[in-house]
Amino acid sequence: MTRPVIGLMLGDATGIGPEISAKLLASDLTRPLADVVVIGDARVLDLGIRDAGVTLPYRAAGSIDEVRFPAVALPVVDLRNIDPGRFPQGVSSPESGRLTGDTLKHMIELARAGKLDGICFAPLNKGALYQGGWRFNDEHQMFARLTGHDGFFGEMNVIPEFSTFRVTSHVALRRAVDLVTPERVTSAIRLADDTLRSTGLEKPRLGVAALNPHNGENGLFGDEEIRIIRPAVQNMRAAGIDCTGPISSDAIFLKALRREFDGVVMMYHDQGQIATKLLGFNQGVTVTAGLPTVFTTPAHGTAYDIVGAGKADAGALGAAFTLAARMAASRRAARRPA
Amino acid sequence: MTRPVIGLMLGDATGIGPEISAKLLASDLTRPLADVVVIGDARVLDLGIRDAGVTLPYRAAGSIDEVRFPAVALPVVDLRNIDPGRFPQGVSSPESGRLTGDTLKHMIELARAGKLDGICFAPLNKGALYQGGWRFNDEHQMFARLTGHDGFFGEMNVIPEFSTFRVTSHVALRRAVDLVTPERVTSAIRLADDTLRSTGLEKPRLGVAALNPHNGENGLFGDEEIRIIRPAVQNMRAAGIDCTGPISSDAIFLKALRREFDGVVMMYHDQGQIATKLLGFNQGVTVTAGLPTVFTTPAHGTAYDIVGAGKADAGALGAAFTLAARMAASRRAARRPA
Repeated sequence: MTRPVIGLMLGDATGIGPEISAKLLASDLTRPLADVVVIGDARVLDLGIRDAGVTLPYRAAGSIDEVRFPAVALPVVDLRNIDPGRFPQGVSSPESGRLTGDTLKHMIELARAGKLDGICFAPLNKGALYQGGWRFNDEHQMFARLTGHDGFFGEMNVIPEFSTFRVTSHVALRRAVDLVTPERVTSAIRLADDTLRSTGLEKPRLGVAALNPHNGENGLFGDEEIRIIRPAVQNMRAAGIDCTGPISSDAIFLKALRREFDGVVMMYHDQGQIATKLLGFNQGVTVTAGLPTVFTTPAHGTAYDIVGAGKADAGALGAAFTLAARMAASRRAARRPA
Repeated sequence: MTRPVIGLMLGDATGIGPEISAKLLASDLTRPLADVVVIGDARVLDLGIRDAGVTLPYRAAGSIDEVRFPAVALPVVDLRNIDPGRFPQGVSSPESGRLTGDTLKHMIELARAGKLDGICFAPLNKGALYQGGWRFNDEHQMFARLTGHDGFFGEMNVIPEFSTFRVTSHVALRRAVDLVTPERVTSAIRLADDTLRSTGLEKPRLGVAALNPHNGENGLFGDEEIRIIRPAVQNMRAAGIDCTGPISSDAIFLKALRREFDGVVMMYHDQGQIATKLLGFNQGVTVTAGLPTVFTTPAHGTAYDIVGAGKADAGALGAAFTLAARMAASRRAARRPA
């Protein structure tokens, strides 16, 4: 049995997270993929059920230890920590951010204790999280800290055509250039290969981006391609990874779009984000890759402009859940004794 | 009369330039817009006419001083400098690059003497040009040198939805970060405004990109937005230019695509090139903006894979010609005594 247990987190209670979670859970998407348990406040789920206009029988539990699979009704571990009446919908709240972080921390503890195989979360309000005291540059760094991970890890962005992986992320561009080192490029290529394998690809095809315009134009516009990126790609090819590069920034995404690559390793944040956002990443999935626990979330935000209107689309959350289930199942299979 | 004289250059003789030039000249696109004169070797034009499979009556002249407009047959100033029999089609040739540069230099001299109002050129082979002795990082720098220009200038890229302008271009990313200065950002905004006005927009709407991810996240990921870009945008607004920014790299092109901006001022080469190439820039136009002479060219290259097959598309060259004619007419009108 490699059927994984996925914890679903409802997102920041002020956004569309509860509504799209209810829509997803009322659909028939999740059950074939995983045993799903909601971790959060049952009142927030009730709000989501009301906003979504769905029927969703669930059974509240005081702790995950009371939950048994297969479960007839959806199990909800009711943390009783977030009263949605205190936080108006569509308004950013540092206190809601703080409590959202508390819920995520609790879920990570459950995962570390082996009680969850993966965590899928609806949209967070990152500003509220930060103002609420979770002072990390992004949630990936928060997750790394809480999982006790000290190796390389990173944000992975998934659209139907390809996924992106980052050598650097939420740092100033000047600092990003300094962080393009042989160690980091190598680590990012390995992470991309490992992660894409865990999504089910046997031999992922990776493209590795250049740092400088025109791939450095043979050293005329910078030498990081010659000194750092090309040797790293060659070493990783020698190690059996199917990677190609460096490739000019303005060519690599066209190639990936033509399905020449499953993954693109990018040197800095906007290199990939400019491309993926133009290609409809708003309906894509973000993964925190490289941590002991699988984390996935839809790429879009809390959508305060449509919260409570019942018209939020659960498609990206469904894609995030599917990916979490697939990656967690692959990890379970890998962990099983032969 | 603001009807401009546009010199058409056939591009590198080894590529599709002669073919698409013949197709364009045989169409009815150019005559309503400008008086057109081909400057180059008549044998290269003959090759293009043959490849294109068109009929194109022309009249060769030994010098532009022999040309009178309106002309019944297309005037061709025959430089007799490039024998296409010496250069196989589809093969890069430094010697062909050298001669291509000579033709461009001659055209620039004609423009400086007031005999051409604008120059539209078919695709160059930039590597051949460089190997042939024209040792510039790009053709824009070559044109600046040959026109004797020593102020700010830059490459402008045009797609139907919007145009991009550059604070920095063909330099290493590390150097680009250093070159994001108040003076350069201000100059690029002014250049974008001036240039878009010369294309016929009365009050161009400009978006100015951030340098760092998430617009610097309020200084957390770099402070160039706060120290440099925002003040420059505010100064230019105060000076009457409709500019907005800084705006995150991964949002600004989506806004421009929704027609919120006519022009995007980008901080570094790949910021705009990633976006415009994904949006079909291959059929767009490149302009050298800010020089005393108007220069335009199609964004695509010499297309060696299809040269000689008669199937090259002259659409982007036609767009480049149209833009050259419009900008040159606007300049003529501005120069005329009241």
